[in-house]
Amino acid sequence: MTPKTLADFQSFLAALPAPDAAATEAAQARNGVLTKPPGALGQLEHIAIWLAGWQGSDKPRIERPQVAIFAGNHGVVAQGVSAFPAEVTVQMVANFRAGGAAINQLARTFGATMTVEALELDRPTADFTQGPAMSEAEVTAALLAGWNAVDPSADLLVPGEMGIGNTTAAAAISCALFGGEAADWVGRGTGVDDAGLKRKADAVTRGLAANPGREAFEVLRTLGGREIAAMAGAMLAARHHRIPVLLDGFIVCSAAAVLKAAHPAALDHCLAAHVSAAQGHARLLSALGKVPLLSLGLRLGEGSGAALAIGVIKAAAACHSGMATFAEAGVSDG
Amino acid sequence: MTPKTLADFQSFLAALPAPDAAATEAAQARNGVLTKPPGALGQLEHIAIWLAGWQGSDKPRIERPQVAIFAGNHGVVAQGVSAFPAEVTVQMVANFRAGGAAINQLARTFGATMTVEALELDRPTADFTQGPAMSEAEVTAALLAGWNAVDPSADLLVPGEMGIGNTTAAAAISCALFGGEAADWVGRGTGVDDAGLKRKADAVTRGLAANPGREAFEVLRTLGGREIAAMAGAMLAARHHRIPVLLDGFIVCSAAAVLKAAHPAALDHCLAAHVSAAQGHARLLSALGKVPLLSLGLRLGEGSGAALAIGVIKAAAACHSGMATFAEAGVSDG
Repeated sequence: MTPKTLADFQSFLAALPAPDAAATEAAQARNGVLTKPPGALGQLEHIAIWLAGWQGSDKPRIERPQVAIFAGNHGVVAQGVSAFPAEVTVQMVANFRAGGAAINQLARTFGATMTVEALELDRPTADFTQGPAMSEAEVTAALLAGWNAVDPSADLLVPGEMGIGNTTAAAAISCALFGGEAADWVGRGTGVDDAGLKRKADAVTRGLAANPGREAFEVLRTLGGREIAAMAGAMLAARHHRIPVLLDGFIVCSAAAVLKAAHPAALDHCLAAHVSAAQGHARLLSALGKVPLLSLGLRLGEGSGAALAIGVIKAAAACHSGMATFAEAGVSDG
Repeated sequence: MTPKTLADFQSFLAALPAPDAAATEAAQARNGVLTKPPGALGQLEHIAIWLAGWQGSDKPRIERPQVAIFAGNHGVVAQGVSAFPAEVTVQMVANFRAGGAAINQLARTFGATMTVEALELDRPTADFTQGPAMSEAEVTAALLAGWNAVDPSADLLVPGEMGIGNTTAAAAISCALFGGEAADWVGRGTGVDDAGLKRKADAVTRGLAANPGREAFEVLRTLGGREIAAMAGAMLAARHHRIPVLLDGFIVCSAAAVLKAAHPAALDHCLAAHVSAAQGHARLLSALGKVPLLSLGLRLGEGSGAALAIGVIKAAAACHSGMATFAEAGVSDG
């Protein structure tokens, strides 16, 4: 089934696919007899067992990871919230398509395919300080674009984004869903100065006042952006196909936050890959109940931190599925 | 030149190769014009510039990483310091050669070659609680075995180890070089109980009393093991060939510590890849002045934590060397 309306997405969230309990149990048993002391592979063991549940196999594999990039433009840039001009969004999409961006190199390094969806870049969302960023038709179209971008045969999904102004939208979503002050959630993004930082916090405060609805999808519609909605749609499609997801930075996690607010189990198929240097990201991960795998100071977006973690996930699957057991190897198990 | 004697190794340390300053400077300049905000790739940027210096190129590549495993046996196991019998060392070497261990899967995942040197497993070092673990001829042979195991055409080296009892030797080296109590450095290794932990601390205390020399190579000779000496030799060969090195856990770092004690700049070509769950490793990294890239709870040895970081190093090189510049991509640079 492919959802067509906001109500369809809400119905999907009410009956989420669960991991395969038998595969999880079989993977736990296998983990206990591999040629290593118990627990000696640390996080890799937990990751492998988690993958087994979602892939429905006690020997999970990562052979077809997909990096899915979504780009959108934001009316709130009229409030002077970004250090870069809005035309950089379309320029960076061209860079993604030509293979010149960081995410292209990361996808290639870890053997991932990469798709790029440019979402009506010539039609930015409305400035949310003045009213809703999107109509219901617009947010639904973006959710669907995300849903449809996911390759059903992928075995790992990394959603990523590009959109000048989108750290302000992500801060507004986070503040609307989890509370606190605007200043707790805004940061310097790709390099705004002190005055820009104050303009971002002001824009968030005014956006929340102008858009009082706090239901999860209403927050997405009124304060989000097309690429953020598309990433939420992609995460739901991944759940439908039981594809594990790696969450990147602040903006990706704001899309995930909408799903978490809509249903507490909505992110069970997602791991936090990296905690970025972006203000608000550590706080948002904590609100999502996620502990990041990596902390390497990235703050680029594009799904880059999560793409970096593909190697860790591949390694976890490879160890679990490829190692010999004590019996196979003739090793004494202590 | 290949060193032949302990004096040759000491001479080498007195005239260490340095990174290429021109390549470092060119890489810094390139980093500033790539299509990303300044600093947005975090640690990846520092890694790429560091690689450039050691590889002597402003576009470093990781195409031939080598995992070099060394195995040795330890007389100190007579003191009841390990939960596993000593025959596991030779069994695990067979597992490495058959491709069944965790490190085999990790090397394959990250496209690394893997070499295995079993160092006189039927002739353990002497029990260091009774006197020196090795003679000068023995430690020199082990250093040379490590030196010779390094492929001069490798572009990244991951030294790894296997040796029942070697966490006790690593603790003794660390305590001898950096002080503190034996209990600060010993841990449960691959699963000793409280009584075993006390036996390890006692063995370290008695080992330090029985072997009073504190010069770096004398500590290696009297308290170390063949695989630890071999890893020190491999790190020096890597320096000779200007091959960057990823340091794994507590035992690998005890080999590195000998070099650091012998010359403060001896580890400039080494990055700490991972902080393990082993007691003493975080303390040892701090003594070495190294901040680890990853913290994923591994405590296996075999070079596994460092092998996991090969992906991060590859990613750093790929981004730096493969990304378009602002001018090439026609992207506004803010």
